[in-house]
Order: sequence, then structure tokens, then C-alpha cells
Amino acid sequence: MKPFKISEAVVRRLPVYLQVLNDLHMRDVQTVSSQELGNKLDLNPAQIRKDLAYFGDFGRKGIGYDVSYLIEKIRQILKLDQPLNVGLVGAGNLGRALCNYNTYLKDNMKITAVFDAHPSMVGASINGLSVLPMDKLQETVAERNIRIGIITVPAVEAQNVADRFVDAGVAGILNFAPTILRVPDHVRIHYADFTTELLSLAYYLEKEGDDEDETVVD
Amino acid sequence: MKPFKISEAVVRRLPVYLQVLNDLHMRDVQTVSSQELGNKLDLNPAQIRKDLAYFGDFGRKGIGYDVSYLIEKIRQILKLDQPLNVGLVGAGNLGRALCNYNTYLKDNMKITAVFDAHPSMVGASINGLSVLPMDKLQETVAERNIRIGIITVPAVEAQNVADRFVDAGVAGILNFAPTILRVPDHVRIHYADFTTELLSLAYYLEKEGDDEDETVVD
Repeated sequence: MKPFKISEAVVRRLPVYLQVLNDLHMRDVQTVSSQELGNKLDLNPAQIRKDLAYFGDFGRKGIGYDVSYLIEKIRQILKLDQPLNVGLVGAGNLGRALCNYNTYLKDNMKITAVFDAHPSMVGASINGLSVLPMDKLQETVAERNIRIGIITVPAVEAQNVADRFVDAGVAGILNFAPTILRVPDHVRIHYADFTTELLSLAYYLEKEGDDEDETVVD
Repeated sequence: MKPFKISEAVVRRLPVYLQVLNDLHMRDVQTVSSQELGNKLDLNPAQIRKDLAYFGDFGRKGIGYDVSYLIEKIRQILKLDQPLNVGLVGAGNLGRALCNYNTYLKDNMKITAVFDAHPSMVGASINGLSVLPMDKLQETVAERNIRIGIITVPAVEAQNVADRFVDAGVAGILNFAPTILRVPDHVRIHYADFTTELLSLAYYLEKEGDDEDETVVD
């Protein structure tokens, strides 16, 4: 695949397309139009066609997209056609919940190691994974070829955990702790703070009794 | 405040600004420049100035933004200056984790009721809240003036829970189940599926040994 430039907004929509397409595939749907995808996702069909056109000429006029083919292409684009190992620090409720998502992480992406700084957690079993102590992080990341680190510790511990992941050589971090972290430029960091979603949702709620609150999506 | 149009991308950045500003405020920082905010958030300072200019003329040339004033303004914009009650269905690991986030939900936004369909969960205490059965949802949403519903149940149960929330009259839903839900137009739905973040993060990882993977952010 030759290199191309693609906006972050598009990259974020691709997993959502993939989810809908996987749903369709499971229901034996063979083709889907941008209009149908747009209805399911509450997105403009023209936007969807434009997004997918970044990656090649997938659609056929009057027929739509071949579901299996599009799934395969998006998986390639997201590099899900190769195994990707993920490590997680913080075996609390959130960490446990994420490990249980492993089931949904088809596509070769798997949480393959869980760490916790608290001795009482070490050795516990979460969805088949035994919780490891922090002093095993460096060697485990290397041995299991872990490329993404997930952080589910309290905010005050998060920077320290990020530093440990960076030292161990991960390429990306997904941070759930409600705090901004510093990482070197060569490490990609994404934030998954649910409070952000909740607060931005609040913005869109109509005042009680209100009927109009127009918003332009760009 | 007069009505204005603002893009969804900007609304999603506001809670992030708020988080950084709250951090600064706690450390007794009085003013901050768009350059400093940009460094902390890995965003272009011009972008930050443009975002904040939507809401009024907050900054002062050569001085920057008054931290307390900007916090107050963003809270008003996000409607966090009034109480907002949240209900949650699904008292598993993820639901419990989110209830523990209540601590971070300053600003009048609180999870005030937790529900679960499984009799074994009902009556359990989570962060001070007693888990209620589903047949209490409708009356509790009304009594406690719950305006946002959070869904943390398995994918197959999520649509049913969304329908219950809609019938009970919530204005917004935050869905953590890895599936697309149908809700009427007057209900705003946001998705907080962590797999989306993880998959889009994967896109940005350099191939091992690679050094270049240019991306344009728009």
C-alpha cells in the first residue's frame, strides 16, 4: 500500500464503519449503500463516500459496497491484518472491564498482559490473564512484543505508568486516567476519558422545555 | 447567552480544555497562554485561540487567558453551572468503574442512580448508590430528574436498555456497549466504545523499524 495522508477525523470513523460492517456481515448482508450506512451511523452519505474514497475505489454505482471486501480493506488500513499485542496497567474495575472487552477485539488485537502495582492484586486472574507486578513490565513488553499500553490507574499514578511504558518501548498509549500525560514525540497517545464524552453530551441536551438548539457539524 | 453555531469537534475539545485549566487552577496558576495550552494538549495554539473565540473575547494579548474566568465560561457553555443527573444501567465492572468516576465529575454532574436487570446485583452498594431493579427505572428517572442515561450492559441487551431510557424521558444517552443503537431524533446519543480509540490508535503506530508515517490533522 503506498503512503497517503488521511485526516484524524477519518481515522476515527473507520472503526465505526468496521463495526457496522461486521454487524451486517454477521447478518449475511452482502452489499450496502452509502445511504444505508449513513442511516445507521447518522452521517451524511456523501461524507461516507468521501471517507472511503481515500482508500481506493470500493463502491460500485447503483450497487453499493461489497461488505466483505470493505471489511477486509478497512482491516488492512487499520493494520488489523497483523497481530497487535496490548498491555494494561491497573487491575481495578475499569481494567477488568477492558480485559473483558478482549472478546470484542477480534482482528488480532488482544490484551496479552495485565500489571498492577499493588501486591494484593498480583496473581489474580482476569479473563484468563494472571496479574503481573510492575517490575515485570519491561521484560514482558519485550517478550510478548507489546506495542500498545493501556493505563487504567488513578490520575496521580498515570504519568509514572506512562513513563514505564515508554521506557519499555511501546509505540502507543491509550490513557483512561483523567489527566494529561507527557510522552515523547515518537509515542502516540490517545485519551479515552469517559468524562469528556459525558461533558460534551451535556452540551447538546436541550434545556428542559426548550425545543431548539441548533448545531453545525463539520 | 445568545444562540450560536459551533462544530462538534470544538465541543469535544472543550472538556479537554477544562481539564487542563482545572489542573492549572489547582496549582494556583492565574493566567495561561494559548502557546502553553497548545504544548500541554499537543494542539496548535492558533486552533485553541480559534476554538475559544467562538464563545467570546476571553484572551488578552501578551497576557493570555485568565484561568478562573475561562473555567467559568467553559462551564457555562457546557451547561455545567446547573445540576445534571445521570442514571446508569449495568452494574458490572465497567458500570462500577464509571460510578467511581463520580469523584471526578465535579461541576454538578453526578451519577445518581444505578440499575441492573440481574436480581443478584440488585441491592448491592456501589460508591454509595444502591443498585435498583429495572422496573424502578421509569419512576426513578422522573423522581430524580435524570437527563442522561449511561449504558454499560452487553451488546445484545443494549437496545432494550436504550428503549427503556427513551421511554423514561432522558434527553441523552452515552453508550458503552459495542453496538450501534437506534434512538429517536430528540434524544442525543454518544458512543464511548473504547475499542474505537484502540483501533484508531493502532492506525498511527509505526511499523516496527519504520520511521515515517505522516498524517495530516484537520
